Amino acid sequence: MTAGALYGGIEGGGTKFICAVGTGPDDIRAEILIPTTSPEETLKQTTRFFKLQETRFGEISSIGFACFGPVDPNPASPAYGQILPTPKPGWSNVNVVRMLCDSFDVPVIFDTDVNGAAMEEWRWGKGQGLQTFVYLTVGTGIGGGAYVEGKLLHGLIHPEMGHILVRHDWEKDSFKGICPFHGDCFEGLASGIAIETRWGMRGTSLAPDHAAWDLEAEYIAQAVANYTLTLSPQRIIIGGGVGSVSHLLPRVQKRTWELINGYIQSTVILENIETYIVHPGLGNRSGVLGAIALAEKAVQKRL
Amino acid sequence: MTAGALYGGIEGGGTKFICAVGTGPDDIRAEILIPTTSPEETLKQTTRFFKLQETRFGEISSIGFACFGPVDPNPASPAYGQILPTPKPGWSNVNVVRMLCDSFDVPVIFDTDVNGAAMEEWRWGKGQGLQTFVYLTVGTGIGGGAYVEGKLLHGLIHPEMGHILVRHDWEKDSFKGICPFHGDCFEGLASGIAIETRWGMRGTSLAPDHAAWDLEAEYIAQAVANYTLTLSPQRIIIGGGVGSVSHLLPRVQKRTWELINGYIQSTVILENIETYIVHPGLGNRSGVLGAIALAEKAVQKRL
Repeated sequence: MTAGALYGGIEGGGTKFICAVGTGPDDIRAEILIPTTSPEETLKQTTRFFKLQETRFGEISSIGFACFGPVDPNPASPAYGQILPTPKPGWSNVNVVRMLCDSFDVPVIFDTDVNGAAMEEWRWGKGQGLQTFVYLTVGTGIGGGAYVEGKLLHGLIHPEMGHILVRHDWEKDSFKGICPFHGDCFEGLASGIAIETRWGMRGTSLAPDHAAWDLEAEYIAQAVANYTLTLSPQRIIIGGGVGSVSHLLPRVQKRTWELINGYIQSTVILENIETYIVHPGLGNRSGVLGAIALAEKAVQKRL
Repeated sequence: MTAGALYGGIEGGGTKFICAVGTGPDDIRAEILIPTTSPEETLKQTTRFFKLQETRFGEISSIGFACFGPVDPNPASPAYGQILPTPKPGWSNVNVVRMLCDSFDVPVIFDTDVNGAAMEEWRWGKGQGLQTFVYLTVGTGIGGGAYVEGKLLHGLIHPEMGHILVRHDWEKDSFKGICPFHGDCFEGLASGIAIETRWGMRGTSLAPDHAAWDLEAEYIAQAVANYTLTLSPQRIIIGGGVGSVSHLLPRVQKRTWELINGYIQSTVILENIETYIVHPGLGNRSGVLGAIALAEKAVQKRL
């Protein structure tokens, strides 16, 4: 934490924006929930919230914006700060960073919601001290952020780990998947919406011994095995509404271990997989705290 | 290139070591091929080669060692420079860097063969100017190296991209795969050995219209799609004996484009996939030049 600095954080979601002012998990001074309507209206309320907090707590040093995607998070790109074509009506090609910068003369750091959550876990959660790890959220949709060799991974645009291909055994699972782009990709088979569509009820209503859970563990474990083999992370953190279900994690750990089958010669995988695949340190608070972690990182870089 | 500096490179393979002294693709002053026998004998010949070249060309500034795996390439690890348990008789748990350092008082930079190839392409080939890309070799085996946000990716140990799970349609391909760990993982289904075992002849002997090639393109495209979604690379470079087959590349490009199905909103994928999935700039010279690129990078870091 930079001495005296105060940060603004925006968790921009498809149904709500959560905004907060503070310096970390033990120091959130104000927080608000704003329904996601039009970009103009939502950003106006966001701006009003931060302006009000500045009159109470003093100047905000930087604002972190962890946003639903797809987005352009590359500061060198002309479209930096823009939401790319999205099914969310009215938000396609809107530059949300530019709208904020019209009101605030501070750095606005823009990234994906999952990269924000990864940064939060690096700062205060289960990513502390690590150089390379993955944050995966399995909720309504599925997304992943990666911190790689000490930096958030963006690359060409940003990872879209929720859409990797997984093995689909049609005899065990005749559900065709719900992804409008890929049908039965990982998100298409294992997201909260996929579970609800397949079984006719929400995941939270399904008993722990329901067949849904072994299937869910299978798909998540396949994805985790592939991320492990591709990115070589030191840990994989799994959050989100579905991902946080407590009886699911041990099944994912066991099945990932089976799939890797001793090939990665690291004790953390061979002998301690329960420390390799974990829940987030800060549970479901990762969103807006991730935005604050992005804001903090941005100010530190400029110092 | 650091003025006046001369580099040593070792491409350590399971059947041969190629060693060279020089500064880059246009300035290789000496090169030798040494059969891979016992570690002691092989390293002794390697050392003798470099000592001899030093009497001809002057002192070597650093040595890059791009090695068959699995290896420990983490300089902070006590096992840095070690070959991890491997089927290659006599080489398991041998610390090849320590053996070299006994003879040379210069930095020895040790990495996987594919990370070396990635560094070579970054320095002189198709990775020039990129921040994030993947180098994939499809040959006897399959391996991948990644340069991510300006650094070679190591993470927990190093990527093992050849072993990701791919979709295996048993009706189209009844071959059960040759990977001793995973059976029908990517390498198990699509490596040079897999092709030879499945069809009873080497890939190079199969006509371009043989059914092998659409199958091969399918598996490579699945892997490339998954790397793209996970790592968000700006380019994927495909080399190796099988990967370099000229009629294969357009099929891989087409099929990857179909699998991603417009989801990644980048013109390089949507409209120019032939610039996204490419052959290496330096073809099959990437091995030993990769080692020289590693050596060069190491010296520059110390300056």
